[in-house]
Amino acid sequence: MSKPRILVQLDTDKHASVFDAVVAVDSGVHQLFQYSQVTVEDAEGLVHGAMFTRGPADLHQTAVFVGGADVAAGEALVEAVTNCFFGPMRVSVMMDSNGSNTTAAAAVLAAARHTDLKGASALVLAGTGPVGLRAGRLLAGQGAIVKLGSRTLERAQQAAERIEACVSGADVQGVVTSNEEETLLAARDVDVIIAAGAAGIQLISEAAWTSCENLKVIIDLNAVPPVGVEGVGVTDKAVDAHGKITYGAIGVGGTKMKIHKAAIARLFESNDQVLDAEEIYAIGKSLEDDS
Amino acid sequence: MSKPRILVQLDTDKHASVFDAVVAVDSGVHQLFQYSQVTVEDAEGLVHGAMFTRGPADLHQTAVFVGGADVAAGEALVEAVTNCFFGPMRVSVMMDSNGSNTTAAAAVLAAARHTDLKGASALVLAGTGPVGLRAGRLLAGQGAIVKLGSRTLERAQQAAERIEACVSGADVQGVVTSNEEETLLAARDVDVIIAAGAAGIQLISEAAWTSCENLKVIIDLNAVPPVGVEGVGVTDKAVDAHGKITYGAIGVGGTKMKIHKAAIARLFESNDQVLDAEEIYAIGKSLEDDS
Amino acid sequence: MSKPRILVQLDTDKHASVFDAVVAVDSGVHQLFQYSQVTVEDAEGLVHGAMFTRGPADLHQTAVFVGGADVAAGEALVEAVTNCFFGPMRVSVMMDSNGSNTTAAAAVLAAARHTDLKGASALVLAGTGPVGLRAGRLLAGQGAIVKLGSRTLERAQQAAERIEACVSGADVQGVVTSNEEETLLAARDVDVIIAAGAAGIQLISEAAWTSCENLKVIIDLNAVPPVGVEGVGVTDKAVDAHGKITYGAIGVGGTKMKIHKAAIARLFESNDQVLDAEEIYAIGKSLEDDS
Repeated sequence: MSKPRILVQLDTDKHASVFDAVVAVDSGVHQLFQYSQVTVEDAEGLVHGAMFTRGPADLHQTAVFVGGADVAAGEALVEAVTNCFFGPMRVSVMMDSNGSNTTAAAAVLAAARHTDLKGASALVLAGTGPVGLRAGRLLAGQGAIVKLGSRTLERAQQAAERIEACVSGADVQGVVTSNEEETLLAARDVDVIIAAGAAGIQLISEAAWTSCENLKVIIDLNAVPPVGVEGVGVTDKAVDAHGKITYGAIGVGGTKMKIHKAAIARLFESNDQVLDAEEIYAIGKSLEDDS
Repeated sequence: MSKPRILVQLDTDKHASVFDAVVAVDSGVHQLFQYSQVTVEDAEGLVHGAMFTRGPADLHQTAVFVGGADVAAGEALVEAVTNCFFGPMRVSVMMDSNGSNTTAAAAVLAAARHTDLKGASALVLAGTGPVGLRAGRLLAGQGAIVKLGSRTLERAQQAAERIEACVSGADVQGVVTSNEEETLLAARDVDVIIAAGAAGIQLISEAAWTSCENLKVIIDLNAVPPVGVEGVGVTDKAVDAHGKITYGAIGVGGTKMKIHKAAIARLFESNDQVLDAEEIYAIGKSLEDDS
Repeated sequence: MSKPRILVQLDTDKHASVFDAVVAVDSGVHQLFQYSQVTVEDAEGLVHGAMFTRGPADLHQTAVFVGGADVAAGEALVEAVTNCFFGPMRVSVMMDSNGSNTTAAAAVLAAARHTDLKGASALVLAGTGPVGLRAGRLLAGQGAIVKLGSRTLERAQQAAERIEACVSGADVQGVVTSNEEETLLAARDVDVIIAAGAAGIQLISEAAWTSCENLKVIIDLNAVPPVGVEGVGVTDKAVDAHGKITYGAIGVGGTKMKIHKAAIARLFESNDQVLDAEEIYAIGKSLEDDS
């Protein structure tokens, strides 16, 4: 009889996410161990406990999930976790702090339903934030020519360089989008716009995006009004508006949830997986292909 | 196949109650998520995680339990929890900080076995504490004429007014019971006495309660000697003493536990319940009627 | 139908041990309640919650595990836990802070496979530490004549007296082993050496132990190089080297894990067990006898 599936939830917040916990249970986890306020220093003891308890034949039935609101803290924690592994002594790990990977994957998959991303031009608004950076990475990985928008050119260019350094063949450019005029300039010729801004901040006006002639798909990931893309409804899901396809945050949410569950289930297929942006996107892609 | 039953235990103490956790498991909860040191500020993130993960058809399989030693903190937390809900987006909630609701319900149910509470006269000693206030509310809701005893008249009257404000048709009076003489005066003509004081404090002497001619039932909720009602044994359960029926804290405990378990099970019948004093009393009442 | 098996994990560290949690699940625990940063002051509330929820017939389905890196804190916590019990109102408890009991039991069992401990002469290096003390206790309990080695004679003698006070008929002597010469003097005539030192500290040279003519078994419990016994491999398991039988930390680990799992399972056989060094050794012994 195979051993129970154990997920070790390492969360950087005061309280480990209830959202992630419910999704874990609904993805087939039998025993969830919740850990809160986990820092990089705590990783070794916790991860060794996961690595050194079950034999090689059962090690894939134990996995680690890294979450919490602070994406940078989660990134550092994932690195600390994977640094504990050596050779075959390891367990699979998924990183989804603040839903960043599953959200970015769901957004790029939504875009890919309506236009071929290879060679397409895409603009990510708030492209230097955790979700924006991941959306940019995934778009670049699919062969899109990507502009990352930010309020300052310097931050945008640094973020673009980071993506180009980690995605082979990436074509990413930092652009400044601090006002309506700059945003319109950046958006004018693109096929895809993804707005990955913080709650309650409008990033582009309806007048601006409806005037972009090439635009095929526009996706907003902010669920709290005012939304990031004026005129896009939170529940929009492949809605045709002004000849463009629109998605709102909740409209993308169903895909995000499916990806999250499939990724958790995937963790238990082998003990050597690290599920970060690209891997989680690939899982989402295989779900689209199957349906 | 229906989803596992998840209970999110939100506890205001350093460590979430083991007592509440064991009862949850024994009431059919499949997955218990324990959260400690939960404050009003933490509620939104935790409750949103419970609300936004499962679809409407499965939302009744997730519920929230509020506990901890500090009843006032629990009351504030329940309010913060229910404030997160909107429309059908909600999960059921039970409040039982320090066992206050299940204990008060069990005490009033015990009294109701031996006398018709409608029109009866009842005295709650330590009536301004968390359990006493709830016992007073429940007695008033059953149509009893209630006296709430306290060491100061002002606190007693304020508490009585609070109950009259929230229970329609309630007849509640604050009385001062700071010494033997005052307590006897308050008790002299009542049918029911419930002593809801703190551990180790005697609230009424045996000479006093045995001299009350109308008294039919006297219930003590303090399990730690000296008990609240002199001469009543901690394990008394419908014991006939001096022509009165007596209950001690452990004697009421069996009913309390049955109510607690039934209330947890009830949480998972729909997603729109808020189980506080009156709802938990009604659950206890239906258990008595069934047996 | 019997109630689910609940293990209450009381851990003195910032985060309750993942290692102990996985082993609990793999030993048949159905519901694990994890508590971190547990102090002596917290014990009563937590333990009462375990004692007062299930009836006598089901009380053996709830148990307590005490763990954490700090063995002295764990010892104090076990004492606080057992002080909460009275009469038949109790639950079974296992203590294994830092793996001290299961490690010491596994080491002494390994020695017993190769020599009759009754009347044998044994040296425990780093014998005043938590694992060393337990190994000394168990060796003395099996009738061995024990030397406890320490860097100072005073600490060694105090530890020896503690064991003699708690193991009837024990013959334990404190010896100073602060350098190669003293260690060789202590080791020269013994049948068994167990090195129970801290990670990365060599306690005896290969030249020294290979020159001990009577030596039959030498066991090192330090897995982090440099190991405690020069020339013994971490994975050695009954390896014949220079005519002696050698065990390294990982070589003993399999037995340790089997003992740990059997001890957890044993907790649920009755509600009155306190599994500390001797009881855990006896469980290990019965496993050896069965196989």
